[in-house]
Amino acid sequence: MRSTVGWVPVTSRTLIKNLAALPDGPVSVAGWVDTVRDQKKVQFVILRDETGAVQLVNPAVRELDPEGVSVGAAEALALTESISGLSHGTFVRVMGELKHDERVKLGGLEVKIGDLEVVTAALEIPIAADSGLDKRMDWRFLDLRHPKQNLIFRIQTTFLHALRTYWVEHEFVEVQTPKLMASPSESRAELFQLEYFDTTAYLAQSPQHFKQMAQSAGFGKIFEVGPAFRADPSFTSRHATEFTSIDTEVSWIDTHEDVMRLHEELMVAGFTAVVEKHGAEVAELFGIELTVPTTPFPRIPLAEAKQIVADHGYVVPRADADMDPEGERRISQYVKETYGHDFVFLTDYASTIRPFYHMRHEDDPSLTKSYDLIYNGTEISTGAQREHRVEVLVAQAESMGLDPEELGTYLEFFKYGVPPHGGFGMGLARVLMLMLGEGSIRETTYLFRGPTRLLP
Amino acid sequence: MRSTVGWVPVTSRTLIKNLAALPDGPVSVAGWVDTVRDQKKVQFVILRDETGAVQLVNPAVRELDPEGVSVGAAEALALTESISGLSHGTFVRVMGELKHDERVKLGGLEVKIGDLEVVTAALEIPIAADSGLDKRMDWRFLDLRHPKQNLIFRIQTTFLHALRTYWVEHEFVEVQTPKLMASPSESRAELFQLEYFDTTAYLAQSPQHFKQMAQSAGFGKIFEVGPAFRADPSFTSRHATEFTSIDTEVSWIDTHEDVMRLHEELMVAGFTAVVEKHGAEVAELFGIELTVPTTPFPRIPLAEAKQIVADHGYVVPRADADMDPEGERRISQYVKETYGHDFVFLTDYASTIRPFYHMRHEDDPSLTKSYDLIYNGTEISTGAQREHRVEVLVAQAESMGLDPEELGTYLEFFKYGVPPHGGFGMGLARVLMLMLGEGSIRETTYLFRGPTRLLP
Repeated sequence: MRSTVGWVPVTSRTLIKNLAALPDGPVSVAGWVDTVRDQKKVQFVILRDETGAVQLVNPAVRELDPEGVSVGAAEALALTESISGLSHGTFVRVMGELKHDERVKLGGLEVKIGDLEVVTAALEIPIAADSGLDKRMDWRFLDLRHPKQNLIFRIQTTFLHALRTYWVEHEFVEVQTPKLMASPSESRAELFQLEYFDTTAYLAQSPQHFKQMAQSAGFGKIFEVGPAFRADPSFTSRHATEFTSIDTEVSWIDTHEDVMRLHEELMVAGFTAVVEKHGAEVAELFGIELTVPTTPFPRIPLAEAKQIVADHGYVVPRADADMDPEGERRISQYVKETYGHDFVFLTDYASTIRPFYHMRHEDDPSLTKSYDLIYNGTEISTGAQREHRVEVLVAQAESMGLDPEELGTYLEFFKYGVPPHGGFGMGLARVLMLMLGEGSIRETTYLFRGPTRLLP
Repeated sequence: MRSTVGWVPVTSRTLIKNLAALPDGPVSVAGWVDTVRDQKKVQFVILRDETGAVQLVNPAVRELDPEGVSVGAAEALALTESISGLSHGTFVRVMGELKHDERVKLGGLEVKIGDLEVVTAALEIPIAADSGLDKRMDWRFLDLRHPKQNLIFRIQTTFLHALRTYWVEHEFVEVQTPKLMASPSESRAELFQLEYFDTTAYLAQSPQHFKQMAQSAGFGKIFEVGPAFRADPSFTSRHATEFTSIDTEVSWIDTHEDVMRLHEELMVAGFTAVVEKHGAEVAELFGIELTVPTTPFPRIPLAEAKQIVADHGYVVPRADADMDPEGERRISQYVKETYGHDFVFLTDYASTIRPFYHMRHEDDPSLTKSYDLIYNGTEISTGAQREHRVEVLVAQAESMGLDPEELGTYLEFFKYGVPPHGGFGMGLARVLMLMLGEGSIRETTYLFRGPTRLLP
């Protein structure tokens, strides 16, 4: 059935969330069919769009009055039959009469259907709300129709825009660094490689190399939000082979403390925007009362954090100086109980467990000027002041068993002058996962990529 | 020589552009040495940062007064020698006294050096302002230090932020679509492939497939700014193997006219911000008076455009219905002369020269509901209404010789309901190139990637 409406511009459909503010009268809505209650005398359709759900109602006309010649009777019968045939997921466009009515549970309003156009029919949906995660991922484009999933990506939009607005207002320059590289910049492990005309290219594991190059180029302060790739064979809830990395790098810092201060200001900007715009929805759909974190975030040197965790009964079972996920959970819990804070910077990681380009303390080169940011028990970011003195950088690389020859192009730009600098990289999906209490970054990634998942 | 300053937070250095507004007195600046004029009695250093250049001055002390024991004499001699040894590109941090002085050509002010810390020395710069493009690209991190290059990326930042702000204010959702795909979505030509654990993955040539999937997912209106990859062996001024694609896709449109209207509103938002923030600098450094384009942009059906160009003496030498770059230049010139406009939408491309997923006109299926946007003579974008009816889509694919089996996953989500939709993809570097009258996208890409260029 064709709609009687001719040209519908982008902005003419009324978003469902905007119906409540309209007076009773004609409206045009569009979306997909969530459910149909096809009663003898009356039909109800729950229509959903990206902003909400609304009840549509139609008085059923089941047969033509054999004697009647009432105007529109055939159309009414056809409409009834069309509604009876609607399957979940069918996209429809509806002209109707909005009526506010307190008795309607769903938002206190309904739309009496005048005309309904079936835009595309739909096969039966192969997943349910309680389907397993992997099955939902198989049908991610349907899974994303759920209001909770939709909200995640509206939150993502708000969060990223708040970060970018902070950066732009503070005169950071946005860069798009290449994802195709001639050589691995950090390590040959977990690296995707591809045939590139007559040579081989590698997919960037992070924009680290190119962010630092921008410091040599005199860009001063930069940011990027883009994909990063790791041929990581693990199947944990927090690893992916492709993920969105939030990156920033700043010249003329004095210590990693400067980076942490920038980092917490960015988090406050992001959380403030999310709480303002989506706080009520998050409470409703996720049962979480989001709050804006206070600054400064607690800072604990890693060695001290390990000691605190040990004093509370968990000795991190590692031979090296590093933390482990259980240790991160426990120190996070300690910080929450002691300081009432969801975030904690673990600082001053041992040089042996950090990349060679992290700057070391002048008075104790066994420690780096670096940190991890832990949020609700899980690491979401690594930051550091970088070593900008090429001779020190070479010495640090060699001391860690790296061959400076292999790092050739990485070291090149340092020879032409680089100011002191530092920055961080942060996984977007992890932030969202921990913000919303989700169990996996699969839930907070638009289309997850893992060792056995390249589809859809 | 160590600075006497201890801890310098991110925000404490004064950006050079901000000096003019400060009163005479102590300041701290940091940047790289542009030039040194080492005169007998006085030394001048032009210091540059990402915001401008400033003259530093130092009264030279060439030798210690053999009888003198004046306080600080040794330090003054050391400072003079340190300045004499500065090479271009050396990064320094300077404490000094700002003095406004109309006689100073460079901005009417100078900074008398109190203390100068050499942060990193620099090898001699291997390129000059007049070096060839390819050589400049070899040393891109140095090339980018030029004020023109720096401005390009500040303009990029402003342009993208204005687009994103428009999108966010109009409730678009930002998505990060995967760049790793299980199968080629559009064509097997110009495709990078890589080993992906036990299988093969492909790099996305555009987010087309995933943008459309978001429509099926009920996201309504989405945008993305991200990398796209094409194994394109050509060496033109407007092709790259990796480029930043600006993408948007909208549900519930009626025709490609809706997409064009969105497109021109976005361009107006972007240009308004750039003109406001950088108009004066663009005039100064590029000699271009940027203006905000008026809406509506002219629209010309492609067939008519070819006729106009032919009437003006250029018959496009192609056997098919398509335009060519020379034809685009000429129609653009015609539009500029006739309508005074830098932009023109060429519309209604023949079905034979468009992808199978472009929607065709109901009343003339030989034409698509599509367009190219031409800006200052060159195509920057392709947009269209997409075919959302799966049976029509399959028929169109088959009519173009494609095997629907090969398109398997592309067609899958259409079976579960998709609203009418359309959108466009636009090359960021092309927009900037044409905005600034540059000869190649190499100039407007942070680090260009081409068939023979993977470095730096």
